[in-house]
Amino acid sequence: MILVNGIQTNNLPVSDRGLHYGDGVFETIAIRNKQPQCLASHLDRLKLGCSALSIPLPDMDELGSEIASLTDTVADKAILKIIITRGSGGRGYRPEAAPQVTRVLTLHPWGDHINEHREKGIQLTLCETRLAHNPQLSGFKHLNRLEQVLASAELTDNFQEGIMQDMDGFIIEGTMSNLFIVTGDNTVKTPRLGQCGIQGIMRDKLLKWLKNNKINVVEANIRMGEVLQAQSILMSNSIIGLWPVKSFKSRQQTRDYVFADFAASFNKQLDT
Amino acid sequence: MILVNGIQTNNLPVSDRGLHYGDGVFETIAIRNKQPQCLASHLDRLKLGCSALSIPLPDMDELGSEIASLTDTVADKAILKIIITRGSGGRGYRPEAAPQVTRVLTLHPWGDHINEHREKGIQLTLCETRLAHNPQLSGFKHLNRLEQVLASAELTDNFQEGIMQDMDGFIIEGTMSNLFIVTGDNTVKTPRLGQCGIQGIMRDKLLKWLKNNKINVVEANIRMGEVLQAQSILMSNSIIGLWPVKSFKSRQQTRDYVFADFAASFNKQLDT
Repeated sequence: MILVNGIQTNNLPVSDRGLHYGDGVFETIAIRNKQPQCLASHLDRLKLGCSALSIPLPDMDELGSEIASLTDTVADKAILKIIITRGSGGRGYRPEAAPQVTRVLTLHPWGDHINEHREKGIQLTLCETRLAHNPQLSGFKHLNRLEQVLASAELTDNFQEGIMQDMDGFIIEGTMSNLFIVTGDNTVKTPRLGQCGIQGIMRDKLLKWLKNNKINVVEANIRMGEVLQAQSILMSNSIIGLWPVKSFKSRQQTRDYVFADFAASFNKQLDT
Repeated sequence: MILVNGIQTNNLPVSDRGLHYGDGVFETIAIRNKQPQCLASHLDRLKLGCSALSIPLPDMDELGSEIASLTDTVADKAILKIIITRGSGGRGYRPEAAPQVTRVLTLHPWGDHINEHREKGIQLTLCETRLAHNPQLSGFKHLNRLEQVLASAELTDNFQEGIMQDMDGFIIEGTMSNLFIVTGDNTVKTPRLGQCGIQGIMRDKLLKWLKNNKINVVEANIRMGEVLQAQSILMSNSIIGLWPVKSFKSRQQTRDYVFADFAASFNKQLDT
């Protein structure tokens, strides 16, 4: 089921700036037990993105009732995607002063692989595609995602996720997830974001949860050597929760990793 | 008039990856005297972009007859935009192995301001929005254009174009055009592209024309100081041809520039 500005349709006007320039933002939200998860955090990031792009906020009441009407149709689990674009109009790239934004809401089935990978772990590889530095466009989820498309096109069926580096060779994230490593002294490290990368809702949630559970956690600049020496690697996003990494294939070698003991309990509390 | 995969419609499927990820390429082509200008060069760059993104080429015969059928409806001048996307499908960012590409062709009216600015020149400003370095995505016209949207949102009605720098402070191009400066010794200089920026069809055409007319021309790394000391500045794209710059407002000052004498003759031969 798809809603465009509240109307059930499969179509969008060709003139939409989302198509022409990727001029918009999106959120991908897990629905579990018929409830959108972390909805307030997702809507906050959506607002942050609109503000960064100077896109007027959609009517949040309208958006809220559209989310509710889609969620109502879900039996248990599903994936909800919200796209907000600057709508049509403007003079080429230059936006209109007061654009009519477009709201697109789509529902997608929950894949069985999501929980399977939580239990069995994933095989991780290294992508050649790099993330460009642009602080103005980092953190939030805008519709300019060619770097992620190119990186995920590098994945073969053997690999469920790939690590992306920035132009300086720092480890930033996966193609669709944030990355955590557990070091020998049981510190959890995750890449510092700022020049590029997505400030994941699940990343924030995990950081808080680790602190609450007295697990030492730091945001830092991380290079490949640290990933190769880590005990555990974990990938997170709003849909998957935490996927532990079984093995990582870097340029030189393939190494196995142990599962961090907190992964299962973190995932468990997501489902309750 | 709009054609999507050869069919007259104003709509595109919501599922199209052009909307979700900016997963596609485009060309903007001048139609003059009922003829698409530099069509072969535009189609070559379109193919180059498809190849860079591993998007299968559209059927070029079909595309050619769609271009012809739109061009037939034009009285004299118009602007033709061609968008090729990876279509729908794939698993999130990850593309399908054999996607069905989407062809979108739209016609737009020729603006009176285009020829006016050729004769009277434009007022140029400096944009704060910078171009990120990503050689994998530079040169061709993909649909991830948020940097251009943000930069052109900085333009007020007083300025018809703005200069964009890269993250290292090098001058790269305008928000929708390439840039040329004429130095005191009558050398024409244009920024070297490679890390970012668009390899303009009109830029290529002007470079050739200058060489044929024995005017000294170089591609180089250009910093702000050189722009401020130049005799003339010119902006080029496929629609505008060459716009001479009357004045440029940098952070420190506003300076006037003389029109390069070759601009009018270059523009004239475009129209014949």
